[in-house]
Amino acid sequence: MEEGFSRYFYYRENQLFCENIPIKEIASKVGTPFYLYSKQAILDRIDQYKKAFEEYNTLICYAAKANSNLSILKIFEENDLGLDIVSGGELYKAKKAGFPSNKIVYAGVGKTDFELEYAIRENILSFNVESEMEIDVLDELAEKLNKTVRISIRVNPDVDPKTHPYISTGLRKSKFGIDIDEALNVYRKAVKKKNIDVIGIHCHIGSQIMEISPYVEAVEKTAELVFRLKKEGIELQHFDIGGGIGIRYRPEDNPPTPEDLAKAVIPIVRTTGLRLIIEPGRSLIGEAGALITQVVFLKNKGDKHFIIVDSGMNDLLRPAMYNAYHHILSVEKKERKVVADIVGPICETGDFFALDREIDDVQRKDYLAVMSAGAYGSSMSSNYNVRPRAAEVLVSDNSFYLIKEREDYSYITKLEEDAMASLITE
Amino acid sequence: MEEGFSRYFYYRENQLFCENIPIKEIASKVGTPFYLYSKQAILDRIDQYKKAFEEYNTLICYAAKANSNLSILKIFEENDLGLDIVSGGELYKAKKAGFPSNKIVYAGVGKTDFELEYAIRENILSFNVESEMEIDVLDELAEKLNKTVRISIRVNPDVDPKTHPYISTGLRKSKFGIDIDEALNVYRKAVKKKNIDVIGIHCHIGSQIMEISPYVEAVEKTAELVFRLKKEGIELQHFDIGGGIGIRYRPEDNPPTPEDLAKAVIPIVRTTGLRLIIEPGRSLIGEAGALITQVVFLKNKGDKHFIIVDSGMNDLLRPAMYNAYHHILSVEKKERKVVADIVGPICETGDFFALDREIDDVQRKDYLAVMSAGAYGSSMSSNYNVRPRAAEVLVSDNSFYLIKEREDYSYITKLEEDAMASLITE
Ligand SMILES: Cc1ncc(COP(=O)(O)O)c(C=O)c1O
Ligand SMILES: Cc1ncc(COP(=O)(O)O)c(C=O)c1O
Repeated sequence: MEEGFSRYFYYRENQLFCENIPIKEIASKVGTPFYLYSKQAILDRIDQYKKAFEEYNTLICYAAKANSNLSILKIFEENDLGLDIVSGGELYKAKKAGFPSNKIVYAGVGKTDFELEYAIRENILSFNVESEMEIDVLDELAEKLNKTVRISIRVNPDVDPKTHPYISTGLRKSKFGIDIDEALNVYRKAVKKKNIDVIGIHCHIGSQIMEISPYVEAVEKTAELVFRLKKEGIELQHFDIGGGIGIRYRPEDNPPTPEDLAKAVIPIVRTTGLRLIIEPGRSLIGEAGALITQVVFLKNKGDKHFIIVDSGMNDLLRPAMYNAYHHILSVEKKERKVVADIVGPICETGDFFALDREIDDVQRKDYLAVMSAGAYGSSMSSNYNVRPRAAEVLVSDNSFYLIKEREDYSYITKLEEDAMASLITE
Repeated sequence: MEEGFSRYFYYRENQLFCENIPIKEIASKVGTPFYLYSKQAILDRIDQYKKAFEEYNTLICYAAKANSNLSILKIFEENDLGLDIVSGGELYKAKKAGFPSNKIVYAGVGKTDFELEYAIRENILSFNVESEMEIDVLDELAEKLNKTVRISIRVNPDVDPKTHPYISTGLRKSKFGIDIDEALNVYRKAVKKKNIDVIGIHCHIGSQIMEISPYVEAVEKTAELVFRLKKEGIELQHFDIGGGIGIRYRPEDNPPTPEDLAKAVIPIVRTTGLRLIIEPGRSLIGEAGALITQVVFLKNKGDKHFIIVDSGMNDLLRPAMYNAYHHILSVEKKERKVVADIVGPICETGDFFALDREIDDVQRKDYLAVMSAGAYGSSMSSNYNVRPRAAEVLVSDNSFYLIKEREDYSYITKLEEDAMASLITE
């Protein structure tokens, strides 16, 4: 490991840099809190995925849910990736960012009629359907719109990805997909639908997966179904294995690489002859991002030391929600260390970034960097406690760009204010 | 219990009403999901609190964090309540809703300089300070602005409110307040500050509290400190006991009433002679609200039945976050019951409203009402999965008012789009 966290976030003369800019310089210009992304980190990760899968016909669809900032999406689009979406809102952003429809796949258990029609009109590559009823409705809506739609069926291989229960999605009792032993029947029915073209199979077993073996198990089980389908004359075009590769949250973490995944799954998928689709989210953007926050107050209570910062669970929900670990670095390196709780301003005990953490002995107005916050960070942020959402900044070499302005009070109050005005004059 | 959930949400001829309107009628006009509030429920609750405390000099400060919709705030303002805020954003809304500054108290462990200055200029009733450093900074900023500020010190009575660990805030190891045995010293220092007027004492032990005894314990401990202070010549003006009274989430729940609280604490506070401040949030608005959602798909997996709705953890985080129970009613009563998981469209296993719940056998396009969602519902909502936040509707008798328009795709993308445009032309 470099001194710091990675080759994109490292110390030079006791200053934490992002690429070739001292983070302090950005913070003093943009104010805090803000999300900070290294463009090079994203590009390198894209490259790694591309190289790993270049030997096989593969479409890499970035999972927009991890981070859907338009400028981030644009980077993936410019590098010819496809997009994995889960809502009409993500489709809207996909089109704004310029993704061609034939590279968009759409998963999700609860697609509304409005969303389905929107995606039918946009003629996306594949609806990754998750229930029989969805297939029926999709067929009806396609009929109404005089279109044919392409679908893949999301099967549930019942594999334990050994991750947090909230983000493991491939188990039998979960709401996702269709159990693999019932899928054959669903395929049989689906191919009979007039306005549906069954072109693929889909599985996704979870997120922040730190081992390759669950993928092998899931892909093998799913491949068996592909062969069963072939025997019955149901010929597919692609095999979508979802996302889920984990990232480094702790410096010592050692997640699987895109190469590890490619080596393990390509041989299996190759036996089916189908085009491969992968849907990485976290592993494309997670480590490329950090949340930069400023120390507001320090406080001691008995032998407990608190570092109170200007960002909270409304900006980054993962510690409160999943009890997730995020590494935290001082933006200016300090000589001394302390053990502290690093907590936010929100009025909940769950509003913390780290508990009993050894950390540089920062002072009021110093900056901290909460690392590996690029995925499921800004995308899950809220206005809880009427806190404007953070700005977002993209660094490229020695330049930086504001890719989302900080919300202000009037922006976050506007819809309520408009409504109140009409209530009063009524 | 009325047939239904309360006298504000009840069945008439198998239709769930809010006050005098069938909810189905609102849903078909507004679309789903939306938060629905009964104005009468709010007014009655305000009345209950006022009556309970009328025998004693009490300022009721509604805790805006529970629900800060401007039209909701306006109801509290029109009924002469004060406001308990925790951020500059809440102060901004307080002023928009017309609250006079001398009824605003401001808690929170991480008030930024910007927020402190804003509240100093607005000349609020009391800063409920949570650390020594906050007092020092407040004094400096007041000096700079040539003002005197009034403060209360939040003490930590180390009382266990017997609630969810994330929302119990009065324990010694929590980030909140100043330990009661250290508070005396902090008071001594604070009264010496030139620009600070020490006028009160504050405590708050947690939320969703279902017993009165923790209040008695906390208020007794805090009253002892008031007497110690008096002996030293430190005379206060008010005694703020925070919020925290629980509400009915399950039909059979039996939370303490405002009368229970008043009867228990007034006798103790009376011995100090101080004006009483209370800060109820959840108990003023929680049961007055419901989240209305539509069934998108039904799905069976083995012996498991799933009801998939068009609202998710982005709208109401409490089940995913605190594993909280919310009662769920069918908007049209059904003959048959089923046992089902009621889940949202978000791509996380944690995205559920209820697991293995006995519920009316609803069909696609039917509506469900997630009850007791008025507090910490819309205020914690996000755009996760690029989902526009829900509309909000206020019912009064047989009229209803849109108090927040549903967000649309362009609204939630605007700041990123503006930023992307400038990135491209740079
Ligand atoms: C269907 C699907 N594909 C891809 C992903 C992306 O997963 P990750 O960000 O872990 O790569 C998810 C995440 O929930 C998902 O549900
Ligand atoms: C200081 C303070 N006052 C009041 C409240 C409101 O609590 P409740 O909504 O449980 O009444 C809270 C909630 O966190 C709080 O932190």
